[in-house]
Amino acid sequence: MNIILLSGGSGKRLWPLSNDARSKQFLQLLEKPDGGMESMVQRVVRQVTEAGLTQDITIATNAVQREIIISQLGERLDVVTEPQRRDTFPAIALASSYLALEKKLKSDEIVVVMPCDPYTEDAYFQTIGRMVKAVEAGRADLVLMGITPTYPSSKFGYVVPEQGSDDGLALTVKRFTEKPTEDKAVELLSQGAFWNGGVFAFRLGYMMDIAEKYVKAATFAEVHARYAEFPKISFDYEVAEKAASVAVVPFKGEWKDLGTWNALTGELKRNALGNATVGPACENVHAINELGLPVFVNGVKDVVVAASPDGILVCGKDNCEDLKSHVAGLATRPMYEERRWGTYRVLDQTTYPDGTKSLTKFITLKAGKSISYQIHHHRSEVWTFVDGEGQFVLDGQVRRVGRGDVANIPCEHLHSVRAVSDLSFIEVQTGNPLVEDDIERFDYDWK
Amino acid sequence: MNIILLSGGSGKRLWPLSNDARSKQFLQLLEKPDGGMESMVQRVVRQVTEAGLTQDITIATNAVQREIIISQLGERLDVVTEPQRRDTFPAIALASSYLALEKKLKSDEIVVVMPCDPYTEDAYFQTIGRMVKAVEAGRADLVLMGITPTYPSSKFGYVVPEQGSDDGLALTVKRFTEKPTEDKAVELLSQGAFWNGGVFAFRLGYMMDIAEKYVKAATFAEVHARYAEFPKISFDYEVAEKAASVAVVPFKGEWKDLGTWNALTGELKRNALGNATVGPACENVHAINELGLPVFVNGVKDVVVAASPDGILVCGKDNCEDLKSHVAGLATRPMYEERRWGTYRVLDQTTYPDGTKSLTKFITLKAGKSISYQIHHHRSEVWTFVDGEGQFVLDGQVRRVGRGDVANIPCEHLHSVRAVSDLSFIEVQTGNPLVEDDIERFDYDWK
Repeated sequence: MNIILLSGGSGKRLWPLSNDARSKQFLQLLEKPDGGMESMVQRVVRQVTEAGLTQDITIATNAVQREIIISQLGERLDVVTEPQRRDTFPAIALASSYLALEKKLKSDEIVVVMPCDPYTEDAYFQTIGRMVKAVEAGRADLVLMGITPTYPSSKFGYVVPEQGSDDGLALTVKRFTEKPTEDKAVELLSQGAFWNGGVFAFRLGYMMDIAEKYVKAATFAEVHARYAEFPKISFDYEVAEKAASVAVVPFKGEWKDLGTWNALTGELKRNALGNATVGPACENVHAINELGLPVFVNGVKDVVVAASPDGILVCGKDNCEDLKSHVAGLATRPMYEERRWGTYRVLDQTTYPDGTKSLTKFITLKAGKSISYQIHHHRSEVWTFVDGEGQFVLDGQVRRVGRGDVANIPCEHLHSVRAVSDLSFIEVQTGNPLVEDDIERFDYDWK
Repeated sequence: MNIILLSGGSGKRLWPLSNDARSKQFLQLLEKPDGGMESMVQRVVRQVTEAGLTQDITIATNAVQREIIISQLGERLDVVTEPQRRDTFPAIALASSYLALEKKLKSDEIVVVMPCDPYTEDAYFQTIGRMVKAVEAGRADLVLMGITPTYPSSKFGYVVPEQGSDDGLALTVKRFTEKPTEDKAVELLSQGAFWNGGVFAFRLGYMMDIAEKYVKAATFAEVHARYAEFPKISFDYEVAEKAASVAVVPFKGEWKDLGTWNALTGELKRNALGNATVGPACENVHAINELGLPVFVNGVKDVVVAASPDGILVCGKDNCEDLKSHVAGLATRPMYEERRWGTYRVLDQTTYPDGTKSLTKFITLKAGKSISYQIHHHRSEVWTFVDGEGQFVLDGQVRRVGRGDVANIPCEHLHSVRAVSDLSFIEVQTGNPLVEDDIERFDYDWK
């Protein structure tokens, strides 16, 4: 079987740690069994692997997340990038087309689609195993996971089973109900309804038949090029609710969305992460600091403090729900990014009286990695190498660089760098306008 | 008359805004009548001037504060720097010697000594005027200000007057009592005692006679050189308590020490200073941010949030008293300094696996100012100029520098820079060891 992990979203609900380039699933705040730290997506991939479900994982995502996914999960997983953001049906159709047309999987191959960030336990993955068995047994065209509700929530979609349809493997689905009122939810619970957890199992051919109603192509490249022809609609609406035969496999266990600071800090084993100190006169306080300068918190209760190059948050845990609306206008640009080749962190941005700006970054390239051969039309850059060894190229001239070396890059000059060992440098940009997309990329043949 | 302002102290009670180089009296957090911001010491100097007391102000301070004092008050005030930290008697003796031996003031000139940071009102300065009159009238050798107590505090020294000695100008002092217990304080209040506010008026000759018991010299330079011969003792013990005739002039009005975050924020007109937002679900919250990145606070009550290059503080206002002990070990070095020539701010400090460090600073020099001609034995520096115009000298070779220029300064090379217009540059230091005092200073003759 194959797993498609859906990695979407962006957003500010975990600001300032999450930003447009680093969604919540990439925050490395969870403790691994070995004591190290991992992100939500790294945790899910680890759990899939440890449950022995499969090694074949494809991640369906967007262009912005591609680099951080490769950085966190390595190059061994397949990554399918949607050319533009649409909805879950197009994303799953595209990833399925990749499996069918690029990886040439047979149409009776079983595929499981799931979100990349549920905070859950081993039994969840055993339930996925039972969903696969239900598809194999021909129990239904589409098998989904039903989360046993713990309260009459108005935030989830519900799946209502046929009474008496439980054959020990699955239950037949009678109908779906979108987010109900609380009163309606109470009624749904009395009917034995489940929460729709967004986990689906089906045979690849089943999904391809639906996808090909919109885009029928011989190659994955063609599907990718015609991506805009898929309707903007969710998988629930386009597939699940229209399916002739749907079954549900129940899961009863820990299942959470760590999508707010309140929920996320509830799962943290330590009260202070990074250079942070929680003082003695604190109660239920979490401090997470990604900055170099120290954080000290004291004399507060039920509070989260989070600091990153994007900003500093101090928030009562009961006031985290509407954080997104408050901080929407605060950050001008991501101040930290994790890329395929390494990371950068903005140390300073300053605007001078004449409108010219400067931007200072700390950049680290992983050994063996290089950035694209590039040219800027409006900004000049000065790089001061502070650690490691690399090769620097300016207008075709290559030289070895290391600690203490300086590269002066006026605008309109082609340049690139490759890390021989892990390479760190300070970049000072000056220009007007000074914008990230003042960049033209070329190929360079590193011999 | 002349005023000697005592500017001492250092410390962490207002961490992270105050540090060893920037004591609380230099924080520019108070609103001026014209809407601009000023520090406590700037406020006191403005009040002295506005009260028409005198233009002749001498600031007695230590070497660390000299540069920020000149930066904040300009070069028109006299600054007397103690060669080493001792106590208030030596500091006042040194400043008095400066007035007598360097400025050649006569021995009957009246001198008022006062702290540089009381938060008080105009009537306080009118009281100083009455103290001067009391000395002129020969009411006593030493006249001090008595603050009318508002509660039986155990934190202040008390001055007990003779019953019935009030002649409308001053009262005769019967005795001094150091910080009493609260019970004892209640008793003192019933005797009409005052708090000792640390403001003293005397004729210069009176003080010089006492100073010369320890150091009798013909020049100020000699007194300065022999500073260690003064005993480490406070002015209260050495002068006030031994004086044959002491009078007290009462002051009843606003008089505060803004020495904790709770006290300081109580006087702030705005809840957010700098790039900070206090959300709607807050009550009695102050956020002060000197960093470039945004601060957002919501859902908390009675809390101060303060961020500077030295660190980030989140503290319940009732828990500010013992801040000093908690943060003593947090900061490794001042991350921001205001100097005679301008300011610097540390953007990043990183230690690499081999023990080598890098330090990145944003430095701004005021037009016309220069740094010393200097050499480093263990670190190299790269300066990238981002704004303004200057002259840069390396091993005696001068060149004009401006935006986009780079200066590469290997260790063991003499260098300096002078700002023609306000000049900003990013400095990247690398070295092992990398310490601020790896510096040898020389003179350079800027033609």
